[in-house]
Amino acid sequence: MTSLLTEKQIKTKLHNLKNWKMVENEVTKTFVFEDFVHAMGFVNSIALLAERANHHPDIDIRWNKVTLTLSTHSAGGLTEKDFMLAKEIEKL
Amino acid sequence: MTSLLTEKQIKTKLHNLKNWKMVENEVTKTFVFEDFVHAMGFVNSIALLAERANHHPDIDIRWNKVTLTLSTHSAGGLTEKDFMLAKEIEKL
Repeated sequence: MTSLLTEKQIKTKLHNLKNWKMVENEVTKTFVFEDFVHAMGFVNSIALLAERANHHPDIDIRWNKVTLTLSTHSAGGLTEKDFMLAKEIEKL
Repeated sequence: MTSLLTEKQIKTKLHNLKNWKMVENEVTKTFVFEDFVHAMGFVNSIALLAERANHHPDIDIRWNKVTLTLSTHSAGGLTEKDFMLAKEIEKL
């Protein structure tokens, strides 16, 4: 769960996630909503998933836009934990 | 409410706010909490104040740290609206 993924593994996993992209050793996606109220609803859903998984993305809120950035800091890069959380987020 | 403040006005208002600093034409502060749960409690309080005021800070969440950045984009800089919201946030 917490060992670093290889470049090939990351590529395959990214391929299965819509619009997530790799930036340095993190994966990121910006979600756009109707307004701030809807953006905050999303942020709170993320917060619950993150707390349950004990794995917390960086969350940047810009009115109706929410940018999530995932990385396993303790491992120094991307692990299975990041992609499991991204997959759960995509199901929201 | 929405006219740009002068440099002198900004200086006085910043002086009355604890640990907010000006960066370019925005004011910003990072709040540190015990953990993510407490940080999210704060974020949701901010969200309610922001929505009521129809004035929304940029909100960056990094586990237990929340950075708020205020500016009146429609005015191209800092106005009374920014400092009114900052004052409300300080009362939380």
